[in-house]
Amino acid sequence: RLLFKCELLQRTGSFKIRGALNAVRSLVEDSERAGRELPRAVVTHSSGNHGQALACAAQAEGIPAYIVVPRTAPQCKQDAIRAYGATLVPCDPNDKSRAETASAVVQETGGVLVHPNQEPAVIAGQGTIALEVLEQAPQVNAVVVPVGGGGMVAGIAVAIKALRPDVKVFAAEPSNVDDCYQSKVRGELTPNLHPRDTIADAVKTNIGPNTWPIIRDLVDAVLTVSEEEIKRATWLVWERMKLLIEPTAGVGLAAVLSEQFQAVPWDVQNVCIVLCGGNVDLRSLTWLTDLSGKAE
Amino acid sequence: RLLFKCELLQRTGSFKIRGALNAVRSLVEDSERAGRELPRAVVTHSSGNHGQALACAAQAEGIPAYIVVPRTAPQCKQDAIRAYGATLVPCDPNDKSRAETASAVVQETGGVLVHPNQEPAVIAGQGTIALEVLEQAPQVNAVVVPVGGGGMVAGIAVAIKALRPDVKVFAAEPSNVDDCYQSKVRGELTPNLHPRDTIADAVKTNIGPNTWPIIRDLVDAVLTVSEEEIKRATWLVWERMKLLIEPTAGVGLAAVLSEQFQAVPWDVQNVCIVLCGGNVDLRSLTWLTDLSGKAE
Repeated sequence: RLLFKCELLQRTGSFKIRGALNAVRSLVEDSERAGRELPRAVVTHSSGNHGQALACAAQAEGIPAYIVVPRTAPQCKQDAIRAYGATLVPCDPNDKSRAETASAVVQETGGVLVHPNQEPAVIAGQGTIALEVLEQAPQVNAVVVPVGGGGMVAGIAVAIKALRPDVKVFAAEPSNVDDCYQSKVRGELTPNLHPRDTIADAVKTNIGPNTWPIIRDLVDAVLTVSEEEIKRATWLVWERMKLLIEPTAGVGLAAVLSEQFQAVPWDVQNVCIVLCGGNVDLRSLTWLTDLSGKAE
Repeated sequence: RLLFKCELLQRTGSFKIRGALNAVRSLVEDSERAGRELPRAVVTHSSGNHGQALACAAQAEGIPAYIVVPRTAPQCKQDAIRAYGATLVPCDPNDKSRAETASAVVQETGGVLVHPNQEPAVIAGQGTIALEVLEQAPQVNAVVVPVGGGGMVAGIAVAIKALRPDVKVFAAEPSNVDDCYQSKVRGELTPNLHPRDTIADAVKTNIGPNTWPIIRDLVDAVLTVSEEEIKRATWLVWERMKLLIEPTAGVGLAAVLSEQFQAVPWDVQNVCIVLCGGNVDLRSLTWLTDLSGKAE
């Protein structure tokens, strides 16, 4: 029996608002407790769901947000970030420029960098997904979570294993960017230095120093899926469930539908799949047309 | 404030299961009450949402279903009907052939024809939408309902005006197929003999002798919308609400967003829009690409 946690229906269209809000509120509370001024700004480099979420969370708390965005990012994503009142800071489309630009913005503004997935308050915020799942569906035997930087699966694993260690936590990852899988196999953090392309663009990133130990110790297994499997799972959710998930959210269902999931013990009967987001660029659905050609 | 009744999440992907189930169950109860055998079959001519719904309802009650379908109907719709265990009966793609074939099937099988929108039990079944809306959102001041054959808006109007006559009921209709609007203006049933094409394919049909008197007496007004308005409203629901509605379900939101809705009295503050279905053919989304070209 499959249960779905519909994070695509969250404010900003993904689970990222949980971690961003927890990070911003933690900064505010820390300042108040210490009798300091509020943080002057929050800063991040993410043109995707975390960028939108941080902009929204900062706006809610009345703190300026600076989001470093590659010049090549789709206009619709830039518009969404701007709509939440954040300042866009353009950079070149490579990791070096992103990091350098973000550091420069932190120095200039006196702001605080909020990392999309290695910041502990962000990881803890994503863990609230698990608290809700355990409350809403106490019969759950396993949770399946797409993994990119690992903030979501780490937060969920910490919460689940503290409260219900009998519940399994599976990470699901595209084979094309399988650094989490490789790290688990080798027992050490193994970043993918030359990731291939994937339609699950939101997880085209490596797990890091803060999420890796949690994943190593608390995640039961990492399941990998092909691009074709991701597309078919996404199509299935669109067609049958009428939910407009982004392909990254299809990674979890793809893992459950794949052959390797047959190896999961028979007593895992109620499986909760986290549909992590729904920020689809409706202007670029060519993969859909390609897939439908094949399906006929 | 907008509220949405998400009928796209119903079994078979649209509200039609309500009317179909009520019609089939009524037939079964009537037979049992009269000590007669169960109906030998149910029959209809609809390749769309009602066809699927009747097939599903008949299967649930263990009664054979025969669905008359034009040879030209999309394969995916034919597959869906077959998946519910119904027998497909092909006909030529015109009204005459559909009606004649359906009559012939009724005679051959001894079955009962269940009309998609003029059958009273179907109209009553669709009215359960209103019962739920009044229970789930008692603060509602108006309900906006797409109109094709009028089964849904008639059922909703009967229930609303019986229980809460203060709540307004608006029908929403594509300008290209505005027989309901024309009928209200002239005060008499005015079928559109040469309907133009519309992307809201599920309402490309006329109101009829059973729904017209209800619409005449109980529906407050009919709002009409352009094809462009329907597409933009559908896009908005996809992009912001992450719900994969079919364009017909966009007709209600389009009406509320249109200029004519400004004329609605100021005390109408909580408006419930019925998102009637989500059966989108993912293989034919060319309108989406066309629209995105314009939007840029």
